[in-house]
Amino acid sequence: MKLQTIGIVHSPFAKAEGTPIQPMYAAGVEGHIEVFPEYAPGLKGLAGFDRIWLLFWCDRAATCQLIVTPYKDTEPRGVFSTRAPSRPNPIGMSAVRLQRVEGNILHVSELDVLDNTPLLDIKPYVPAFDHLAAERTGWLGAAISQRSVADGRFEAGVKAP
Amino acid sequence: MKLQTIGIVHSPFAKAEGTPIQPMYAAGVEGHIEVFPEYAPGLKGLAGFDRIWLLFWCDRAATCQLIVTPYKDTEPRGVFSTRAPSRPNPIGMSAVRLQRVEGNILHVSELDVLDNTPLLDIKPYVPAFDHLAAERTGWLGAAISQRSVADGRFEAGVKAP
Repeated sequence: MKLQTIGIVHSPFAKAEGTPIQPMYAAGVEGHIEVFPEYAPGLKGLAGFDRIWLLFWCDRAATCQLIVTPYKDTEPRGVFSTRAPSRPNPIGMSAVRLQRVEGNILHVSELDVLDNTPLLDIKPYVPAFDHLAAERTGWLGAAISQRSVADGRFEAGVKAP
Repeated sequence: MKLQTIGIVHSPFAKAEGTPIQPMYAAGVEGHIEVFPEYAPGLKGLAGFDRIWLLFWCDRAATCQLIVTPYKDTEPRGVFSTRAPSRPNPIGMSAVRLQRVEGNILHVSELDVLDNTPLLDIKPYVPAFDHLAAERTGWLGAAISQRSVADGRFEAGVKAP
């Protein structure tokens, strides 16, 4: 299992503090994805999609913690019941809006990813596949309206406030 | 960027041929996820969620191809506009139904993953985060009603029919 960086995310966010924690909180945030030229042939046909999944490596996430206090809560939770980046494999997953494709550059919005994050994969977002039934959302059910931006709690070398 | 296997997917599918290509085509398929005991503390609170994302390593995917003919089409497409497993980083992503949690074992259904696949991550599926607007779905728009199970075309060492 050997990962390769296929590109770089360029966004307005140099650090976790103040970064939206999900695309739904990133309305109006624009950025671009630089796909390294050797992978550009794989982008053929992508421009036809309104939204794409980005998989990326959370390279500035603090060391994995199996119990975390997530942004949306004040109680400690198991990390797999959260979207916190400090996980055994710090792979982030964001469905961002694809505005346009210019060669190997993808212009996107609703972007909630830190600047200079290494990109691992791009997949098309397909409502028929991705809008699935799920009624119960555990501890998040009550917390969904809470905090919408990050602080430094999961950033390496940053003390939580 | 160093991956670690956090568990193993146990499913009825020993090979790609006949495996549903998305959870939406895997109604009634049951299996279980074995999370290695050292990661089990991270499962706290997960049982409250109806559905979970699995990220996994497609360990039997054929070598990366940047242009593929996807299961749902007869035309070659850029791999990033498809969900095909033969990609630069063969990370699969499936939102399966969580039936119940027994210690470090997650009983799931709507499972579309090969047996013995290495697990990389588990995240809660949250409709507020994951049901996002996307009207245009490119080449898939016309193809969505096609094939719902895999053949061997993306399996290492298997000749496509």
